[in-house]
Amino acid sequence: MKARVYVTLKKGVLDPQGRAVMGALNSMNFSEVEDVRIGKFMELELKGESRADEEARVRRMCEKLLANTVIENYRIEME
Amino acid sequence: MKARVYVTLKKGVLDPQGRAVMGALNSMNFSEVEDVRIGKFMELELKGESRADEEARVRRMCEKLLANTVIENYRIEME
Repeated sequence: MKARVYVTLKKGVLDPQGRAVMGALNSMNFSEVEDVRIGKFMELELKGESRADEEARVRRMCEKLLANTVIENYRIEME
Repeated sequence: MKARVYVTLKKGVLDPQGRAVMGALNSMNFSEVEDVRIGKFMELELKGESRADEEARVRRMCEKLLANTVIENYRIEME
């Protein structure tokens, strides 16, 4: 079973990496770029059987390790 | 207009960050995790008018800056 986890910075949290990428794009004549936010994307290969159980477990993984829930949101997609 | 860019390591490219996360998850009793691959997820805010034009431009941004096409694949979603 595959799980995809998207971790993004919460609205209002400064994203210096995104700022730097935006500056670089603007200086490369991509002046239409008004904002860039950078997050993480993780693909997990799981050997569990039940989709619902695994989704709950991936949620626990996010809360405990994969995301910093103080400043980040996460979204899970099961496949 | 919003563009979402997903950058992932190509198959066969070693992912030490993913390995470390997998090891950490396994040691936290998430033993069902068999593989972890970590990529980047970028949200770009664009002020262009034409969706097709902007998609082509985002593709150029990926080729030039956002992805290292030697070892990474990218996927673009326009919104």
